[in-house]
Amino acid sequence: MEFYYYTLLVGIVSVLYAVFAAYATLKKEEGNKKMQEIASAIKSGASAYLNRQLKTIAVFAIILAILFLFLPNGLQITIAFLTGAIASYLTAYLGMNVAVRANVRTAKSAEKGTSEAFKTAIIGGSVTGFAAVGFGLIGISLLLAYLTISKVELLIGFGFGASLISLFARVGGGIYTKAADVGADLVGKTELNLPEDDPRNPAVIADNVGDNVGDCAGMSADVFESYAVTLVAALLIAYGVSSALVNFAYPLYVAAIGIVSSLLSLLFIKVKNENATRALYKGIGSSVIIAAILDFIMTNYLSLPLSYFYAVLSGLVLAILIFWITDYYTGNVSKPVIKVAEAAKGGGGTDVIMGLATGLRTTWFPVLAIVAAIFVSYESAGLYGIGIAAVGMLSLTATILTIDSFGPITDNAGGIAEMSGLDERIRKVTDKLDAIGNTTKATTKGFAIGGAALSATALFVAFAQAVGLTSIDALNPMVTIGIFIGALMPFVFSSFLMEAVGKAANLMVEEVRRQVKTIKGLLQGKAKPDYAKAVDIATVNALKALVVPELIAILTPIIVGIVLGKQALGGLLVGMIPASFMLALFMANSGAAMDNAKKYIEAGNFGGKGSDAHKAAVVGDTVGDPLKDTAGPALNSMIKVVSTISILLAPVFIAYTIL
Amino acid sequence: MEFYYYTLLVGIVSVLYAVFAAYATLKKEEGNKKMQEIASAIKSGASAYLNRQLKTIAVFAIILAILFLFLPNGLQITIAFLTGAIASYLTAYLGMNVAVRANVRTAKSAEKGTSEAFKTAIIGGSVTGFAAVGFGLIGISLLLAYLTISKVELLIGFGFGASLISLFARVGGGIYTKAADVGADLVGKTELNLPEDDPRNPAVIADNVGDNVGDCAGMSADVFESYAVTLVAALLIAYGVSSALVNFAYPLYVAAIGIVSSLLSLLFIKVKNENATRALYKGIGSSVIIAAILDFIMTNYLSLPLSYFYAVLSGLVLAILIFWITDYYTGNVSKPVIKVAEAAKGGGGTDVIMGLATGLRTTWFPVLAIVAAIFVSYESAGLYGIGIAAVGMLSLTATILTIDSFGPITDNAGGIAEMSGLDERIRKVTDKLDAIGNTTKATTKGFAIGGAALSATALFVAFAQAVGLTSIDALNPMVTIGIFIGALMPFVFSSFLMEAVGKAANLMVEEVRRQVKTIKGLLQGKAKPDYAKAVDIATVNALKALVVPELIAILTPIIVGIVLGKQALGGLLVGMIPASFMLALFMANSGAAMDNAKKYIEAGNFGGKGSDAHKAAVVGDTVGDPLKDTAGPALNSMIKVVSTISILLAPVFIAYTIL
Repeated sequence: MEFYYYTLLVGIVSVLYAVFAAYATLKKEEGNKKMQEIASAIKSGASAYLNRQLKTIAVFAIILAILFLFLPNGLQITIAFLTGAIASYLTAYLGMNVAVRANVRTAKSAEKGTSEAFKTAIIGGSVTGFAAVGFGLIGISLLLAYLTISKVELLIGFGFGASLISLFARVGGGIYTKAADVGADLVGKTELNLPEDDPRNPAVIADNVGDNVGDCAGMSADVFESYAVTLVAALLIAYGVSSALVNFAYPLYVAAIGIVSSLLSLLFIKVKNENATRALYKGIGSSVIIAAILDFIMTNYLSLPLSYFYAVLSGLVLAILIFWITDYYTGNVSKPVIKVAEAAKGGGGTDVIMGLATGLRTTWFPVLAIVAAIFVSYESAGLYGIGIAAVGMLSLTATILTIDSFGPITDNAGGIAEMSGLDERIRKVTDKLDAIGNTTKATTKGFAIGGAALSATALFVAFAQAVGLTSIDALNPMVTIGIFIGALMPFVFSSFLMEAVGKAANLMVEEVRRQVKTIKGLLQGKAKPDYAKAVDIATVNALKALVVPELIAILTPIIVGIVLGKQALGGLLVGMIPASFMLALFMANSGAAMDNAKKYIEAGNFGGKGSDAHKAAVVGDTVGDPLKDTAGPALNSMIKVVSTISILLAPVFIAYTIL
Repeated sequence: MEFYYYTLLVGIVSVLYAVFAAYATLKKEEGNKKMQEIASAIKSGASAYLNRQLKTIAVFAIILAILFLFLPNGLQITIAFLTGAIASYLTAYLGMNVAVRANVRTAKSAEKGTSEAFKTAIIGGSVTGFAAVGFGLIGISLLLAYLTISKVELLIGFGFGASLISLFARVGGGIYTKAADVGADLVGKTELNLPEDDPRNPAVIADNVGDNVGDCAGMSADVFESYAVTLVAALLIAYGVSSALVNFAYPLYVAAIGIVSSLLSLLFIKVKNENATRALYKGIGSSVIIAAILDFIMTNYLSLPLSYFYAVLSGLVLAILIFWITDYYTGNVSKPVIKVAEAAKGGGGTDVIMGLATGLRTTWFPVLAIVAAIFVSYESAGLYGIGIAAVGMLSLTATILTIDSFGPITDNAGGIAEMSGLDERIRKVTDKLDAIGNTTKATTKGFAIGGAALSATALFVAFAQAVGLTSIDALNPMVTIGIFIGALMPFVFSSFLMEAVGKAANLMVEEVRRQVKTIKGLLQGKAKPDYAKAVDIATVNALKALVVPELIAILTPIIVGIVLGKQALGGLLVGMIPASFMLALFMANSGAAMDNAKKYIEAGNFGGKGSDAHKAAVVGDTVGDPLKDTAGPALNSMIKVVSTISILLAPVFIAYTIL
């Protein structure tokens, strides 16, 4: 039996588990009528957004699919492309649809205590996690069976399909979630003095929808993409360096082992003594250890050099290190966060200054960690080593996505508990889980960023092979020009996202103010706000703002490749990958630090809620929101889309160049 | 006669003009006793800072000078190094000492109207401009006479000397000026509702000192450095590509022509119909046109290929383009600035979001402009073309620095007019000039950033020649590792600067609050605040915060070069230059946009002074302050110091490498 049938099997097991987990989630109690009503509003808002987003994506996807037909092996590329796009969309769709059902069930099960609520949220979150890796592995295995090893390079179509969906989901979801969040906070908390998730705030449903379309659907598409393109990159590099079949099998086996170890690690994610953060971290730790052991056994069993294992191990260790450092810099009571909170005493300005300083600082450790991983993996197994190191890191995807999806589910559960006026005791449980979800969201974001950077580095190697370059020399001015353009891309790209959030949030503010003015009895809780209108504003503006950044990401490499040539395009990747990595870390971690500084003050420090320091910290949190949840994460998708399209269109860049 | 005697002569003429301008400035009236008192406080604060900074620099410089003695040709390198350091320090010292005298004289001459005050400020500013280029050209010409062409590569010592001073002046001055400014604003404007430059604010003198040590001394050292290292880079590249003597003479002639055209363009900087901005822009325009004509004639006269001239022209055009785009994005009533101001209606958070978005966006045009300049100059004259294009751009230094120094002088003049309670009519004149100075400060900053990027690119070419690399291949994992570390540097470096400003500003806030509490009658204007204490806080904290970023900038390339080798060090430069360029543009322009958005609101828009939008815009301005005047500009110095030390220590990196 060919090796890809084994991995196909593991992929199917993963999806079966996801279906089982979805079923287990749906079987749980939904809570009272009011809770169901709110949950249903969130559900329909999220579905409406995803459906409308699908239409925009479909236009792009169909145009691209038709164009790809004109490439050499066009039909096969188009099939691979559509497979990747559909697999990614299915993951996001399934994951989010379970998340918007798990939220209310988590709130309900909070009646029975932390442990039960925790379990509900984790099982709900694991649907996304295992669907992603399952569909990823199934897709690649089936395409390998269809294309055979001799045409393995066409798999890049699969990677690009995943990238395209990710780009849309990250950008659109990111703008949506923060337009709603910032808009809801600005009027609700600051002007009207309403608490978070107060049902009188007209933007509150939109805010909860945003958690799902951004943190759940957007994140899952992003990590699915990293997973898919990393596997593809490893296979392409294997193709470039040797024809030994086992070199193709190895990265897929590492991925399969990741699924197995993630499944086993679920057994360790249990709340004892009410310490939920610890439970999550134990899940990650156990999943890394099990994976390492199984990878070691597998490498030996296949009689492969142990150096392969070292390369994979460096990827696994990298994941843990990035997790740890993100937690240090942005964790709830870490020293840097307290510094930011203290700076809030001087006002919003100094809070933001310290928040940005913290974010800038956080870049150093992840970079050194990734550099060490590149060094170790290359010294172990050459360029192929970089590819399998990336696969090693991304093999943890199921666990990471499970923990990540825990975030929006508990966030929503807290919102539903608040809005439906559940008992104080229950709300304490959901609030606690919500706070944990916030921290883990930040740390999994670190994983997503690190994973994107490492997989882009592997894709860069694959690109050079695809266009037939044996060197990309920075002393060649064409390469220099490409490097400058590449470093430029993340800055311009993220400027559009920041601007979109700023604009849409302002429209949201105006709408909320309008409703407060025109709907009588709204603030007294006697009349219901028009939630749908706020949902609509977030939806329309997110979709409107999608197009320009998408075009920048897709067209820039094409134009550079055709006008300036493949050397310049190589330079573009060289400049883009590190600059995007730094900018993404800076943005994500600045935002997380300012968010947690606000929470630290809310916990009663430096004057607590309502103090001047708190008001200053709210300003910082507002600035941090689009940094950490829109612009920062979207850069992950951007670098992968640029990398995959550069490989995909390699035949074009080889054949035609203007300069 | 050797060619460098001609340029020596032009350098001497330039310094003579600077001395004449200094003399002309000192001859002007100083104003009444109160004005003199205030000016004297600023003067002594600025001198005290510069003297204490010198001590810190001296420690570094002496250690380095001794270490350099152990290099091959150590004595000559040490002499070149000290020459560069002294020339740079002299420029900053002379320029600043005239600036702190021109300020009060400008305020006094404002009695006679805009035209007269404008003239005083411009003549005062021109001292810095012409001293910089004069000392630069004299230093290089003399060293050439001493070292002869055969040892031209030792000139890098001169470049590094200039770089070291620039690093200190930029970092220290930048922290000083913003700690004082932010501190003064936070309490003064926000808490106590005092106007800008109110004498009752204890931090007001420190704020005015900061303008001089930051915008004047810091900026002049930065641009002097760009000027010096660009000339050195061009000479090194000439040495690498050909032995024709005329190739060495050419860049020096271009520099000399720049001085002549800058002198002539002074005739065009005159205020007609009270439009001072236009006068300044006419100065730049005429200086470019005259330089282009003379460069064309000179190229023909020397019977050199016209392609050389095209390369120089691309540098001149680049300067104009960057000027124009910075003005567009950050100018007083530009569309992007109005957008930021409008976002202030939503609060400080949205103001900063839009400000950052604007800053991110501003990167695109300068990058395309620089890429076009690299392309044209390389196509015209190969790698040598890049070197002379950079010289072409920097040949405008005298004019640019003149216009730049106009900023702190008029800023101070406004402060002195306000503090000494001059007539409303006079204050209107100084306010107007101050506003113009603010815009030109932003645009000249764009020039400094662009100049730094282009000269670093030229230095990169020189580096490859110095370590004997004919290719720096991004597919080599050592280079990849270097690229990541290089891209990391500007982020970590600037995080220290942001943090330093945040911390020092908070200390300043506490001190101001303390004085307001303990000094009776302070707010009623009956008792004088303790200005000296505030000056001391800014001084001490700026000097304390200097050390870590300096060490990062100096030690990182040395460690990478010795541990990872010259390939990795080449990668470091490849990663650092574009990332720093983008980050510097982003930071400088975000800050400028938020500053001008505040001014736009103060001019009566969106509610005007005292409105909620205004308060929000003040938050944005506070965030923007260290971005635009500390972190952003300091990156210029960082990239040049890293580049020059990499070249300087080339023999070490060739001989010893650990990995």
